[in-house]
Amino acid sequence: MDGFPGQAHTQAFSLFPTTRISAALRADGFGENPFYCCLVAELLPAPGEPQGPCVVVGYGLYYFIYSTWKGRNVYLEDIYVKPEYRGQGIGSKIIKKVAEVALERGCSQLRLTVLDWNKGAMDLYKALGARDLTEAEGWHSFRFEEEAMRELAGK
Amino acid sequence: MDGFPGQAHTQAFSLFPTTRISAALRADGFGENPFYCCLVAELLPAPGEPQGPCVVVGYGLYYFIYSTWKGRNVYLEDIYVKPEYRGQGIGSKIIKKVAEVALERGCSQLRLTVLDWNKGAMDLYKALGARDLTEAEGWHSFRFEEEAMRELAGK
Repeated sequence: MDGFPGQAHTQAFSLFPTTRISAALRADGFGENPFYCCLVAELLPAPGEPQGPCVVVGYGLYYFIYSTWKGRNVYLEDIYVKPEYRGQGIGSKIIKKVAEVALERGCSQLRLTVLDWNKGAMDLYKALGARDLTEAEGWHSFRFEEEAMRELAGK
Repeated sequence: MDGFPGQAHTQAFSLFPTTRISAALRADGFGENPFYCCLVAELLPAPGEPQGPCVVVGYGLYYFIYSTWKGRNVYLEDIYVKPEYRGQGIGSKIIKKVAEVALERGCSQLRLTVLDWNKGAMDLYKALGARDLTEAEGWHSFRFEEEAMRELAGK
């Protein structure tokens, strides 16, 4: 990867292999019919350096969604790069890899959501070719929390 | 259903059983590991009326998504009620049923997106207990279209 010490690649991998993750996160992502998929960016040893365990420096968590207009789509729920590895194009590489996976699976759109104070992320997504649908078309995200759901369901 | 000629209920069912649907829509929703689920609201014959095929008057198309903070969630992609059946609480019934299914599957949130000119829908979702996260927290929806994805992936 340009400007990156060593090489990085992304692959399907345990989300936080070196830390304790909740049983639910593991079961939901790594059982049959997983609820999400995850790509990790790993820092490989540079040529000539001793081989050792790869260092995970970022990840992209995504899942498949569906549009009644456009069919199969992908949603990038979460993208993260460790602060000390930012500014080196790793986030863009993760998005590009998710786009590759999406196309391989017959998806026609890649969606994501970002907070409006996160100008750096918004600028990056726009530079990579995304459109801000809230700005352009007025889409608003709504959410029912669990308590509201229980009231709705009468439970 | 109150104020409704006959009774309505929702159930898993073919999306548009009486019209031609695309092979992709059928395969993606009704094969193994479907990309989406669909509930339909049906108008049943009133007591004493002759039995016949149910009339589908609306539907809710949803799928399971995932939050790294909150775990399993449901996204209501599309909700529709035929114009002549609106104003009778059918949309609310569909949302309530999706909330029930979500809770049964261990989901802690129900998300959806709505256009800001659709005041009727926004008011309904708020009245049912949803929060407008774009208004409250500044969430913006972004989308890469297929052409942008192909450029990203170098394809």
